Amino acid sequence: MKLLIAIVQDKDANRLSNQFIDNDIRATRLSTTGGFLKSGNTTFMIGLEDERVDEVLDMIKAASHTRQQFMTPPVNLDAQLDSTSSYPVEVQVGGATVFVLPVDQFHRF
Amino acid sequence: MKLLIAIVQDKDANRLSNQFIDNDIRATRLSTTGGFLKSGNTTFMIGLEDERVDEVLDMIKAASHTRQQFMTPPVNLDAQLDSTSSYPVEVQVGGATVFVLPVDQFHRF
Amino acid sequence: MKLLIAIVQDKDANRLSNQFIDNDIRATRLSTTGGFLKSGNTTFMIGLEDERVDEVLDMIKAASHTRQQFMTPPVNLDAQLDSTSSYPVEVQVGGATVFVLPVDQFHRF
Ligand code: NI
Ligand code: NI
Ligand code: NI
Repeated sequence: MKLLIAIVQDKDANRLSNQFIDNDIRATRLSTTGGFLKSGNTTFMIGLEDERVDEVLDMIKAASHTRQQFMTPPVNLDAQLDSTSSYPVEVQVGGATVFVLPVDQFHRF
Repeated sequence: MKLLIAIVQDKDANRLSNQFIDNDIRATRLSTTGGFLKSGNTTFMIGLEDERVDEVLDMIKAASHTRQQFMTPPVNLDAQLDSTSSYPVEVQVGGATVFVLPVDQFHRF
Repeated sequence: MKLLIAIVQDKDANRLSNQFIDNDIRATRLSTTGGFLKSGNTTFMIGLEDERVDEVLDMIKAASHTRQQFMTPPVNLDAQLDSTSSYPVEVQVGGATVFVLPVDQFHRF
């Protein structure tokens, strides 16, 4: 038995949560904040048999790894004449941090 | 030293919290959500000497194990003529998930 | 690799959070409640290389250890004639509980 603690961006959390449900993985969800920008993120606690750990790590990685995304910046009304302001820009989104913890005992009552 | 992480239903959390206080057990409480219905639950983090683990597991089990309860469904105003709608029905409530984690160091400052 | 779980008073949390940022320590922050008075506190989860554990324990201790502080009690409008009510009194503030947990695997995606 292991306890996975996975911290993901809020924008990736719902998709991941649905995948857990589809795969019969019971996850408990916490609202957390983190890092320099104090942005909201989501922490999942997931109890797992050892033989399912890799499968769930792959799922988390696929749903929330760091990637580049094109985003159209919001129009700045004070700069209407600056025609560059509405071009899409490439930003980095996603990213996950996962701890796999040993478990001495697991109980369901 | 162990760290217990116990996830219980919100409706069982206050009673359990009072029992912890009565028994000098320091618990930190988190608001969490979980499972298919995204229902609210409560997670307790409890640091314990090894010899108190079984006592606290028993306490959690007694306060929050899965059990049947009779509940009167709310009256449905659109179905006033259906006389069955106010009969009590048996529903399953409660249930707890507990992880007992090993601890390398414990400090109180 | 270790996972530190540190529970501190809300009033000490922002200072500590800034120190973590200044020292390139990534911490995830949870809103929690605890103890007899159900006062709000803050829990930090911090993943650390073994060789940084002592440094971070010192940081947590310095920022949030139990200490005496003088506080002027709020003026009680019903007791305006009681001249003792506005004298500063000594109260105990702060205090931190820290668990250092072993980690089997750590991933950043
Ligand atoms: Ni991808
Ligand atoms: Ni019972
Ligand atoms: Ni000091």
